[in-house]
Amino acid sequence: MSKNLLKENERIDDLQLNGLKIIQNKKGFCFGIDAVLLSNFVKIKNNQIAVDLGTGTGIIPLLISEKTNVKNIIAFEIQNEVYDMALRSVKLNNLENKITIINDDLNNVEKHIKKNSIDVVISNPPYFTSGGALLNPSDYKAISRHEVMCTFDDIARNTNYMLKPGGQFFLIHRPHRLVDVICTLRKYKLEPKEIRFVAPKRGKKPNIMLIKASKFGNSELKFLDPLIVYNDDGTYTDEIFDIYDGVKIDVFDKRGK
Amino acid sequence: MSKNLLKENERIDDLQLNGLKIIQNKKGFCFGIDAVLLSNFVKIKNNQIAVDLGTGTGIIPLLISEKTNVKNIIAFEIQNEVYDMALRSVKLNNLENKITIINDDLNNVEKHIKKNSIDVVISNPPYFTSGGALLNPSDYKAISRHEVMCTFDDIARNTNYMLKPGGQFFLIHRPHRLVDVICTLRKYKLEPKEIRFVAPKRGKKPNIMLIKASKFGNSELKFLDPLIVYNDDGTYTDEIFDIYDGVKIDVFDKRGK
Repeated sequence: MSKNLLKENERIDDLQLNGLKIIQNKKGFCFGIDAVLLSNFVKIKNNQIAVDLGTGTGIIPLLISEKTNVKNIIAFEIQNEVYDMALRSVKLNNLENKITIINDDLNNVEKHIKKNSIDVVISNPPYFTSGGALLNPSDYKAISRHEVMCTFDDIARNTNYMLKPGGQFFLIHRPHRLVDVICTLRKYKLEPKEIRFVAPKRGKKPNIMLIKASKFGNSELKFLDPLIVYNDDGTYTDEIFDIYDGVKIDVFDKRGK
Repeated sequence: MSKNLLKENERIDDLQLNGLKIIQNKKGFCFGIDAVLLSNFVKIKNNQIAVDLGTGTGIIPLLISEKTNVKNIIAFEIQNEVYDMALRSVKLNNLENKITIINDDLNNVEKHIKKNSIDVVISNPPYFTSGGALLNPSDYKAISRHEVMCTFDDIARNTNYMLKPGGQFFLIHRPHRLVDVICTLRKYKLEPKEIRFVAPKRGKKPNIMLIKASKFGNSELKFLDPLIVYNDDGTYTDEIFDIYDGVKIDVFDKRGK
């Protein structure tokens, strides 16, 4: 049955989480640790409605739908080919009643979503500025990584539009963009309330940051203890194993104890 | 000779750094680890001119004058009694040619310093908002810790006024104010370029942050490895000992090895 769901170079990966499967493209972009860390960082209450901006192959809605009691997740993906993969993954998992994938620019969010109507917004956005470079618009990896199709300002502005007052925005980004991210969030009244840095080892500088912002929140930022990926001996930490909680990663036999 | 330099409750502490001494008040505010960490974080090139905003008893100018080849340090302190202690410490160390202490509100900086004339600004500001509380104006500790006499906005605005383009601002603050600090720096074109978090132990959240900002700098923030204060066994780390480099702290016999 699954076979005819696949196009050239695609494969079905078993996420080893309640039978969840995802279609990925061997030559394209497969989900990485960032999507898994963000999905774990997100807190959604029962029957809340969430939006994922720039969903890619749909990894975040798939994980969230299994890990939480979210009512609905609406996920935006501008790139047609990747949108199509996400759509087929939703069907493959029989999650059409819970996950809606929309193939549109997130700057058109007003066409699809009412103002102040969403409980939680999630985004794993492009991390790098386009730097004025003309990137190939058919280069999926480049578009996922560089602010070609949308900037962080676009993401924050549209998040402000759709979030209820007090609604929460969970995002992952790179520390070198901290100032841009923090100032843009505040510009759009999405006050950063919690930050968690992810560092490769204890005592090392972070290479990933997780942020929870609250629409119209007051100004006090809480730091969480950093999330450490590797033990000093190079094996994964227990917390990383707990977060993956069955989600298949190639390197899993590296566990040290 | 030193005896008549002292007023009631005051004592002279030997900083054990090239014979440097400081006058402190047993019932008032004595310098803490923050001033030492900030002085160590500051980078000043030969013959540069520096300003310290809110100098307290003058610990930062004293340490900087010994640790760098700074040409002059001009230090502002609004509180008369503390200013007077700083002034006497400068005399006690025969540093009148290098350090100038000014007893004025830092919002009056234009009266004393030309626009765009300073290479480096340093500040260990009050960490907490006043929260609308009416604090006793004679309570030195309260004024040092709460934004009663000046806000961080005042500090950043006046730093922008006096710094040369490309000049650097070194400051220490608390992580819970990260958003306020970062956004205020950018507001005044003082782009955060380096951040170093200080954490009590490896793998724990930070309780202090050190920031280097550059006037008109471009937007990319570099993280340094965190500075860890204690080893897992509760002794001070080697880096803390290196930073103190002779500066006397009461707890120094805690060294583990």
